[in-house]
Amino acid sequence: MSSTWGNQIKISVFGESHGAGIGVVLDGLPAGAPVDMDAVLLQMARRAPGNDPAATRRREADMPEILSGMQNGRTTGAPLAALIRNGDTRSQDYANLSLVPRPGHSDLAAFFRYDGWNDIRGGGHFSGRLTAPIVFAGSVCRQILSARGVTVGAHLLSAGTVSEEPFDPAAVNKELLDSLNCRPFPTLNEEAKQRMRDEIERARMDCDSVGGVVECAAVGLAPGTGNPMFGGVENVLASILFGIPAVKGVEFGAGFAAAKLRGSENNDPFRVAADGRFFSETNRHGGILGGITSGMPVIVRAAFKPTPSIAKPQRSVELVGRTEEELVIRGRHDACVAVRAVPVVEAAVCIGLLDLLQGRC
Amino acid sequence: MSSTWGNQIKISVFGESHGAGIGVVLDGLPAGAPVDMDAVLLQMARRAPGNDPAATRRREADMPEILSGMQNGRTTGAPLAALIRNGDTRSQDYANLSLVPRPGHSDLAAFFRYDGWNDIRGGGHFSGRLTAPIVFAGSVCRQILSARGVTVGAHLLSAGTVSEEPFDPAAVNKELLDSLNCRPFPTLNEEAKQRMRDEIERARMDCDSVGGVVECAAVGLAPGTGNPMFGGVENVLASILFGIPAVKGVEFGAGFAAAKLRGSENNDPFRVAADGRFFSETNRHGGILGGITSGMPVIVRAAFKPTPSIAKPQRSVELVGRTEEELVIRGRHDACVAVRAVPVVEAAVCIGLLDLLQGRC
Amino acid sequence: MSSTWGNQIKISVFGESHGAGIGVVLDGLPAGAPVDMDAVLLQMARRAPGNDPAATRRREADMPEILSGMQNGRTTGAPLAALIRNGDTRSQDYANLSLVPRPGHSDLAAFFRYDGWNDIRGGGHFSGRLTAPIVFAGSVCRQILSARGVTVGAHLLSAGTVSEEPFDPAAVNKELLDSLNCRPFPTLNEEAKQRMRDEIERARMDCDSVGGVVECAAVGLAPGTGNPMFGGVENVLASILFGIPAVKGVEFGAGFAAAKLRGSENNDPFRVAADGRFFSETNRHGGILGGITSGMPVIVRAAFKPTPSIAKPQRSVELVGRTEEELVIRGRHDACVAVRAVPVVEAAVCIGLLDLLQGRC
Amino acid sequence: MSSTWGNQIKISVFGESHGAGIGVVLDGLPAGAPVDMDAVLLQMARRAPGNDPAATRRREADMPEILSGMQNGRTTGAPLAALIRNGDTRSQDYANLSLVPRPGHSDLAAFFRYDGWNDIRGGGHFSGRLTAPIVFAGSVCRQILSARGVTVGAHLLSAGTVSEEPFDPAAVNKELLDSLNCRPFPTLNEEAKQRMRDEIERARMDCDSVGGVVECAAVGLAPGTGNPMFGGVENVLASILFGIPAVKGVEFGAGFAAAKLRGSENNDPFRVAADGRFFSETNRHGGILGGITSGMPVIVRAAFKPTPSIAKPQRSVELVGRTEEELVIRGRHDACVAVRAVPVVEAAVCIGLLDLLQGRC
Repeated sequence: MSSTWGNQIKISVFGESHGAGIGVVLDGLPAGAPVDMDAVLLQMARRAPGNDPAATRRREADMPEILSGMQNGRTTGAPLAALIRNGDTRSQDYANLSLVPRPGHSDLAAFFRYDGWNDIRGGGHFSGRLTAPIVFAGSVCRQILSARGVTVGAHLLSAGTVSEEPFDPAAVNKELLDSLNCRPFPTLNEEAKQRMRDEIERARMDCDSVGGVVECAAVGLAPGTGNPMFGGVENVLASILFGIPAVKGVEFGAGFAAAKLRGSENNDPFRVAADGRFFSETNRHGGILGGITSGMPVIVRAAFKPTPSIAKPQRSVELVGRTEEELVIRGRHDACVAVRAVPVVEAAVCIGLLDLLQGRC
Repeated sequence: MSSTWGNQIKISVFGESHGAGIGVVLDGLPAGAPVDMDAVLLQMARRAPGNDPAATRRREADMPEILSGMQNGRTTGAPLAALIRNGDTRSQDYANLSLVPRPGHSDLAAFFRYDGWNDIRGGGHFSGRLTAPIVFAGSVCRQILSARGVTVGAHLLSAGTVSEEPFDPAAVNKELLDSLNCRPFPTLNEEAKQRMRDEIERARMDCDSVGGVVECAAVGLAPGTGNPMFGGVENVLASILFGIPAVKGVEFGAGFAAAKLRGSENNDPFRVAADGRFFSETNRHGGILGGITSGMPVIVRAAFKPTPSIAKPQRSVELVGRTEEELVIRGRHDACVAVRAVPVVEAAVCIGLLDLLQGRC
Repeated sequence: MSSTWGNQIKISVFGESHGAGIGVVLDGLPAGAPVDMDAVLLQMARRAPGNDPAATRRREADMPEILSGMQNGRTTGAPLAALIRNGDTRSQDYANLSLVPRPGHSDLAAFFRYDGWNDIRGGGHFSGRLTAPIVFAGSVCRQILSARGVTVGAHLLSAGTVSEEPFDPAAVNKELLDSLNCRPFPTLNEEAKQRMRDEIERARMDCDSVGGVVECAAVGLAPGTGNPMFGGVENVLASILFGIPAVKGVEFGAGFAAAKLRGSENNDPFRVAADGRFFSETNRHGGILGGITSGMPVIVRAAFKPTPSIAKPQRSVELVGRTEEELVIRGRHDACVAVRAVPVVEAAVCIGLLDLLQGRC
Repeated sequence: MSSTWGNQIKISVFGESHGAGIGVVLDGLPAGAPVDMDAVLLQMARRAPGNDPAATRRREADMPEILSGMQNGRTTGAPLAALIRNGDTRSQDYANLSLVPRPGHSDLAAFFRYDGWNDIRGGGHFSGRLTAPIVFAGSVCRQILSARGVTVGAHLLSAGTVSEEPFDPAAVNKELLDSLNCRPFPTLNEEAKQRMRDEIERARMDCDSVGGVVECAAVGLAPGTGNPMFGGVENVLASILFGIPAVKGVEFGAGFAAAKLRGSENNDPFRVAADGRFFSETNRHGGILGGITSGMPVIVRAAFKPTPSIAKPQRSVELVGRTEEELVIRGRHDACVAVRAVPVVEAAVCIGLLDLLQGRC
C-alpha cells in the first residue's frame, strides 16, 4: 500500500504532479470541530513555492476545494476530502526524463516498481507537490489538537553546513512554537537564517542544492499518550515522516547523539514541580519514554537530503538502450527542499499526534 | 495498539519480563517454508545475555517452544506461535522501583498510560527481554528471505564514543553479511571491537553505561520493492525498528549526514554494468529511492541510547507522595544494550523486508 | 473508522449527498492495467436513477472525473481518484427532516454519533448516492479481474414477495453472468421481472416501498484463494457488502437454508472431471470452504430492506423538544432500492475479490 | 491474513487441532480491568464437548494458561495471551483423510491454498477447536463490556427443521440474556429444547448431522456506537462472525425477512419514553441504523451449516491419483455444531462490540 496511512485518523493522499489534481481524504475526524480555513491556507502558503527567495519560482495556487466533510465551518464527521487542481505545469520540462532516470530521484526505482507505467511527469505521485495535501490535512488536525491544548511548531535547524542552535528541549513552549508555526522560513535566530539563505543561494548559483534538518516540537500532550513497542509515538511519527519526500533520517530527543553518551549523562532526572506535577530537568528523552509521552515536550528531527534535481550535468543511464548518458535537468527546483518542508514536518507530526490521541479512550 | 505489527506478515508479541512467558504469533507466512531451528537458536543465542562479557550475566534459557504453525520442519501456513518461558527472574530486584520511576525508563510514562496497573517487574512488557520473540520471528523470516536470495547482516558501528568504519554501502555483499550475522559481537574490525569492549567495560566499572549505533545492510532485494509515501521501505523499517527498546534514531543511506551535503555530492550517478544491469557507483541513497528499492544494498542505522539502568545513584520522584528521592538501581544490566541489539536490528529488518516482499504480487 | 476499506486494495469513499461532490480513492491497484471508461460508465449508468421506471426520477449525471492514477487509459499504480460532482439537489426537500428522524433511516443514530454535526441533507454521507463511487471503484476492479479470468454478475432474486429462481450454483458460468452484468434490471427470467416491476409499482402507488434480495456469483477464481478464520472470502465480502446502505443480511451458498439441512444433504460430493480437475456435483457451499475458494462458483446473496423513505405519514419524534410527531417525507425515492443495488453488489464483490487476489503471492 | 482481527482490540488466534496447543493474544485491552477467571472458565465449559449429550464425547480440558497481560486478577494493559494445550487427540482418526478431502470441509480448498503443507490432522487450523481461544477472548471482553453496562446473550433458534420463537427484539433485556449466557444449551423454551435435542439425536442415529441458527442479542449499548459504511456495527460483527467455522449466513434485525416487507411494515416508528429517552416501538432494524446503534437491542443471527463430518459413506476424490473414492469418516463429531456454537457467537459479538466501543472516544 502506498498512500493510505493511519489508524484512528486515516489519510488517503492522491494525485500526480501533472495530472488533473492532487488531494487527500481524512477519515475519522471528530464531528463538530471548527476549521478556520484562513489558518489552513496560511499553512499551505508556507509550503507553497514563491513565498521565499530560497524556494522555486514555480507558482502553485494550491487552493484546496473542500469536497465533503465540512458544513458551516465545522467537520461533519464524514470523511473530509480536499482537492487541489494542478495548474501551471510545464510537462515539456520533463520530456527528456522519461528514459533517463534522475540520480537521487525515484525514477529508476519507480520504473521497476511500476514496469514503466507510472506517470513520470514532474515526478508523478512521488513529487514534492504531494506534500500540499499533507499540509492541508495536518492543518486541520493542528486545529483540533490546538483545541485540546497541543501546539506543534518547527524550525530549520540546518541548511547544508550552516546550522543554528536546537530547541532547548526542556524549555520549549507554546509561545515559541506559535511564533514559528506561522512563518515561511522559521528559525530561532535571525542571523542564522541569513547565513542559511546565503548557503542556499550559493548552492543555487553553483547549479547545485543543499540538504537540511527540520526540528519539530510538540507541547501540551498529556503524559501517557502512546503505546509500547510498535505503537509508540516514535513509531507512529517516523512512519508518517518518512512519507515526506527526501527524508532520510528521523530521531527523537538526543537521537543519534544519545548513542555517544553515558547513561548518567543521558538519563533525565525526574523532579516535582511546585504544583505537584512531575517533570524532568532535562529532556534528552525528547518527551517519549518506552514509546509513551512523559509530559515533557516531544522533540523530533527529520533529515532532508539535498534536492536531487540540480542544473549541473549528471551521469545517468538510458533505460531502454541500457547505455550511459549525461543528463541535464531543466525547470525550476528548490535549492533546499528543507525550507518548505518545515510546515510539512509540522503537518505530519500533527496528523500523527491526533491519530495517537484519538486512540486514547 | 501496542504490540501487533505488519501488513502481509503480522506479528503479535506478548509477554512481560517476570510473567509466565513471552512469545510471538506470526501470521501470514508462506506454507511449506523449511525452518532450521538450529539456525533460529543461533540467532537467539546471539541476543541472549551471557555470551559476551559486555552483556549482563543474568542467564536466560530463551528456548522457544513452537506451539503451532510448523510440522516436520516446515511452516504449515497457519500462524506460527512460539513461547519462551520466563525462568530466572529476581522480582525482588525491582521491589523498590514500584513507586520510584527509573530515569530514562518507561516507568513514569507507563504509570500514566496504564493508571498504575501495568506489571512493573523487570520493566514488564517494556523489558528488553521482549526482543527475544522478535529475534525468533526475525530468524524465521530471515530463512525465508534467504531462500529468495536476500541476506541481512549488521555490525556494531559504535559503542559510546568509540566507532569503527561504516559499511562501504556500494560494496557490501552477501559474504560479508554472512560473516557478521552469526557472531555475538559483530564488527568489521577486530581492533575496533576491542576498543569498544574497553569503552563498555570502563562504563561498567564506573557504574555507568554507554549507547551505541547498529548499522544493518540487506542485499539481494529485487529493485522495485516497496511503495511511495507511507508504504516505503523506510517507513516500514522505521516503524518496526522504533519498536526495539532504546532506539532513538533511524537513518537510511547517508542519513543525517546527507543533510550537510550538496546535491552534486549526494546524488549517486547511475551506471550500466557489463551484464546490462543498472547500478549506482556510490550508494548514499542506501538502496532506497522514493521509498522503493533501487537494487543497491539497503543501508539502515539505528541509534541506541545508553542503558538507563545504571548502578549510580540517580535523582527521581516518589509517585504517591510526590516527593523527590534518590534512586539506586540494583540487579544485573547490560552496560551497552547496543551489543545484544545487533541481532535484534537484523531480525526487525528481516520481518520488515519479508512483509514488503509478500506484498509484491 | 467509517469509509476506508481494504487490505491490498484500499478504497476511501468520501462525500455527502448534497455537498460539493462524492468520490473515491483506490490505492493498491496494479500499474499498467487498461481501464475502459465506457465500460465504467455503463456500470455507473446501471446504478444511476432514471434508467428504469422502478427507480427514482431524480437525475444524476454521475459523470466521474479521474483526478489521478490513470494515464493514456491505463492505471499508473498511483492512487486512482475519481470525483463525481453533486448537481441536481433539492435541499429544501430535507428541510423538515433536520429535527425529526426518519424511521428506518440513519438519522437518529447519526444524531447521537455526531452530536448533531453531521450533514443531514439527503442523508449526507449515509445517502444511497454514496454507492456511485463504489460502483466506479468496482468497475475498475472488475476489469482487472476480467483480465485474470474472473467474471462477476448478479440478478435480482426477489422484490418484495415476488421472487424468481436462484442461480444454479454449480452451473452458473461466464456467459450467463456477462449477459446479466450489463443490464439495468437483471433477472434470469423475463416474466419474473415483469412481476417484480408490478410488485414495486404497486408499492409506489401505495406510497410505500418493498425490499429485495440480490444474488451475485463469481466464476473463474482459482481454487485456494482466501484465508482461514477472519481473512476468509466470506468475511471479506461481508465486511464490504454490509457497507451498502439497506443491506441487513448476507449469506453464501445455501446460507440460512443450510441450517435446516442434514449434513448428507448439504455436503457437496467431490468429483474428478474428464480433464482431471476436481469439482463438486452440487455447490451448496457457494464456492467457499473454510473461507477459501474451492474452484466452484462463489455464490453470495444480500438482503435489502425496503426503502425507508416512503410517502406515507409515519410516526417519529422531534429531537429537541422530545415530543412525538407525524412525519411526511417528500422528494423522490426509489420504491425498491434493491433494483439499483444489483450493480452495487457486483461492484462490492469485485473490490473484495481483487483485494483477496492481490494478497495471494 | 488469516487469524488476526480487529482495530482497537486486536486478537491473534493461533494453533492447530493436533499440534502442541492453541491460544490467542489480545492486544489493546484497557489496563486495570478485573477478570474473573471462573466466569471465563464457565464460558469455555459451555463450548467444551461433553457437557451435553448433543455434543461430541471427545474430552477437552481446555484449561487456558494465562501467559501475560494479567496480574493479581486484573489486566495490565499489555497483550493478554492465553495458551490451551492439546491433549486427548487421536491423530490416527485422520490418517485416511490426508489424500481424500472430506466433503463440506476445508480440506480441498486448504490443499490448494497451502500446496499441501497445512497440518490436516483434526482439520488443523480450520478445526472447530480453534473456537476455544475465541471464547476465551470473548469472555474477557464480555466482562469489560459488562462493567460498562452491556450484556450479550444468545439462544439456539433452530436445530435442523426444529425452531423456537425468536427474541422479542424490542423487549429483550439484561435479565433474559443473563439467564441464557451461562447455560450449555440455551433456548427460550424448554419444550423446544427437547424437540431440538430429539432432532439432533435422530440425525446422529442416522449417522448424519443437522445445521442450526444462533440468535444473539446485546443490550446496554449507548446509541451512536458504530460508523457509517464499512465501519458499521454490521460490518464489524459480520467480519468476525464469519470467522467461526460453519457460519454461512449473518443477518441483523429482520434480516432476510425484511426483504419481503414493505417500508411501512419494516420501518420502526420512533417514540419518546416517559423519561424523555427515544426508543422505537418495534425493532426490525435490530438496533442498528446506518451502521450505528440506535439504542435498541442489537439483534444478530448466524446460520450454521450441518457438521460436515458424518459417519455415512460419502463420495470424494483422491488428490494424487485424481480418482473418485468413497470416504468414511471415523472419530467423534458433534451432530449439530450450532449447539456448542452459541457461546462462540456470544464471544465473537463481545469482541466485536468492545472493538467498536474502544474506538469511540
